[in-house]
Amino acid sequence: MNHLSQEMQECIQNCLDCHNVCLQEAMNHCLEAGGKHTEPAHFRLMMNCAEICQTSANFMLSGSDLHTLTCGVCAEVCERCADDCERVGEMDECVQTCRRCAASYWKMAGAAA
Amino acid sequence: MNHLSQEMQECIQNCLDCHNVCLQEAMNHCLEAGGKHTEPAHFRLMMNCAEICQTSANFMLSGSDLHTLTCGVCAEVCERCADDCERVGEMDECVQTCRRCAASYWKMAGAAA
Amino acid sequence: MNHLSQEMQECIQNCLDCHNVCLQEAMNHCLEAGGKHTEPAHFRLMMNCAEICQTSANFMLSGSDLHTLTCGVCAEVCERCADDCERVGEMDECVQTCRRCAASYWKMAGAAA
Amino acid sequence: MNHLSQEMQECIQNCLDCHNVCLQEAMNHCLEAGGKHTEPAHFRLMMNCAEICQTSANFMLSGSDLHTLTCGVCAEVCERCADDCERVGEMDECVQTCRRCAASYWKMAGAAA
Repeated sequence: MNHLSQEMQECIQNCLDCHNVCLQEAMNHCLEAGGKHTEPAHFRLMMNCAEICQTSANFMLSGSDLHTLTCGVCAEVCERCADDCERVGEMDECVQTCRRCAASYWKMAGAAA
Repeated sequence: MNHLSQEMQECIQNCLDCHNVCLQEAMNHCLEAGGKHTEPAHFRLMMNCAEICQTSANFMLSGSDLHTLTCGVCAEVCERCADDCERVGEMDECVQTCRRCAASYWKMAGAAA
Repeated sequence: MNHLSQEMQECIQNCLDCHNVCLQEAMNHCLEAGGKHTEPAHFRLMMNCAEICQTSANFMLSGSDLHTLTCGVCAEVCERCADDCERVGEMDECVQTCRRCAASYWKMAGAAA
Repeated sequence: MNHLSQEMQECIQNCLDCHNVCLQEAMNHCLEAGGKHTEPAHFRLMMNCAEICQTSANFMLSGSDLHTLTCGVCAEVCERCADDCERVGEMDECVQTCRRCAASYWKMAGAAA
């Protein structure tokens, strides 16, 4: 993957990490804890975040310029997911991974501008 | 799925149709025809279109308000894919399905406004 | 899609229907109902069923012979999902769609044998 | 992810690596090189391999016992993809990543037996 820019390689890795953490936390910790963790709006946001991160990573891996469109949505969803995980509590890894993913998009978008 | 609005049900179906047609045409007709059909930029666009349609359909099926974000990107990618399929030629089903998918998003967005 | 056999076209449609119903029921009805509907093992099975149905449909759409591998797993997961939805109750549409999906795989496999 | 066994954590990482390498090589190197690299059977196998690796990783991340079903198919597809990449040539990274993914499944399956 050495023909991709450093910023994009970091962004792909951060998207994949965020997909993994959101999916795993939702389907294990959240389902087992219940209560606020399985509120429909919170749980949907976790699953939506996992999916758009996967799709954005796939757009970048495919070499497509259109990744700017998916990554913009991905950063927005990640920020909302981080905020909601903070509200629910006990989701520190998820908060940090979502914030890091959104930040790496802004860094990549800035480097391209 | 009767608790979803008529516009959203149509939009889900159009996204799924567009995913199916783009994926099938790319992996069968385009690979077998070669030439312009496997130009990297064209082929990537077909595969990107299939993927964002699937993701947008999944966001709508999940009951998430965030589908407005993915559907906006989806409509943009569908329009670019339709234009490029017209340029390449012999892709009429793909052109029509992509146009129909983009149009049903604009209809749904208009109905919600 | 007229170069695909009748059995395969039906199987693709049944996989897509099963993906849609399982994903939508899990993320809406199950999350809102709670209780048995969000038991980890049941909810995971619904989401696993949605995902393998999508993957199997994609393998068939891609024109790959390897769909026999994914479809075999898909039929197995659909049958387990149908049984578990029957146990949980109030999931009749899901039970029927999963059973129909598994049956169309066995019909396609039989036609090919 | 520290509640997962060491073998499963390795298997998840190997599936994700294999997804990334197959998708990126197919959509960049193969499309740009053409010739044997875009033969329908070879290109489909690369894309199928990327997709089943993603699905298997998602099953493992979801905490589902059913990952044994998807991982068995995944190991089979990875081995076929490695063999075909060897035949086509100039795909060394893909060959190695696919072989490593299949091997980590057999190691995990052996540890569980």
